[in-house]
Amino acid sequence: MPHIHLPEGIPGIASAFAYRPETAKPMRELAHVLLFEAGSADGLTSGERELIATYVSSRNDCYFCQTSHGAAAAHHLDGDEALVLEVKRDFLTAPISAKLKALLAIAGAVQKGGKQVTLEHIAEARRHGAGDLEIHDAVLIAAAFCMYNRYVDGLATWQPQDAAMYLKMGEHLSTSGYAR
Amino acid sequence: MPHIHLPEGIPGIASAFAYRPETAKPMRELAHVLLFEAGSADGLTSGERELIATYVSSRNDCYFCQTSHGAAAAHHLDGDEALVLEVKRDFLTAPISAKLKALLAIAGAVQKGGKQVTLEHIAEARRHGAGDLEIHDAVLIAAAFCMYNRYVDGLATWQPQDAAMYLKMGEHLSTSGYAR
Repeated sequence: MPHIHLPEGIPGIASAFAYRPETAKPMRELAHVLLFEAGSADGLTSGERELIATYVSSRNDCYFCQTSHGAAAAHHLDGDEALVLEVKRDFLTAPISAKLKALLAIAGAVQKGGKQVTLEHIAEARRHGAGDLEIHDAVLIAAAFCMYNRYVDGLATWQPQDAAMYLKMGEHLSTSGYAR
Repeated sequence: MPHIHLPEGIPGIASAFAYRPETAKPMRELAHVLLFEAGSADGLTSGERELIATYVSSRNDCYFCQTSHGAAAAHHLDGDEALVLEVKRDFLTAPISAKLKALLAIAGAVQKGGKQVTLEHIAEARRHGAGDLEIHDAVLIAAAFCMYNRYVDGLATWQPQDAAMYLKMGEHLSTSGYAR
């Protein structure tokens, strides 16, 4: 049961957004820019951005976020759910680019704490072709999911274990984004 | 030196905001609603909100955020910098309300991870008069500063040790808020 009285029948972060629309608006906008709009603007696709979000959410042990964003990532990646699971389990051996591996390593450091990002992390990402904007966005996606994950679990939101629901949610997020 | 090429001469998060205005906009708005606008709307004052932000930032060891928001808190609290330091050192013995102590305990749990918030944390806050909205905002302020702190340190932004600059920044934030 949630720690506060959230609207019933709405899963995860959506219930907290419905409870407090004033804070939901910028939180939705941030996700929309970082995961959806930016996906066509620079080197990182929306699928790669969703993989970073999913990985950080799994490190933070947030069921709702890793499942919904994992479904969004899979939808972007032609339904490749196996790849999403591999990235969560061990991204170093997953069939993804060396650049994305280096950015996931940065995201994993940020998940532990901002100061965990080292010069070596950054050099490794640049070595594989990552530019400033990609490094920036990897850091901010990881930082932002340290917020979203804590919001979802810190309020003990309702997180149903309903695979079909998350698939539908992933399809919606990957085609329509996060803004209202 | 920052990990990416950020505009020079701009301290902390402001340099990252200048680098990426598209993500800065919702990040500023979220802080504005949570710390500034909401301060007059419910039981938690802006000074108390800034104390929660400062405490979480100190737990995350983020110099820029704990110093700038500490200065904003002190400005809200008639210049009481000693109180800000006491809250950071040991809020349980600081001269603040039992309700704020309970909300700081919730914020401290969220800083570690969303699932660290227990039924006992919530019961203790309610015992001292905290309502749903105050609990919600304490959780979200703590979660949001787990993002801001990681953003500031994950990019290794420039964080000058200039007390006068932070005092001026605190005065500006406490009187004008965070929106542009």
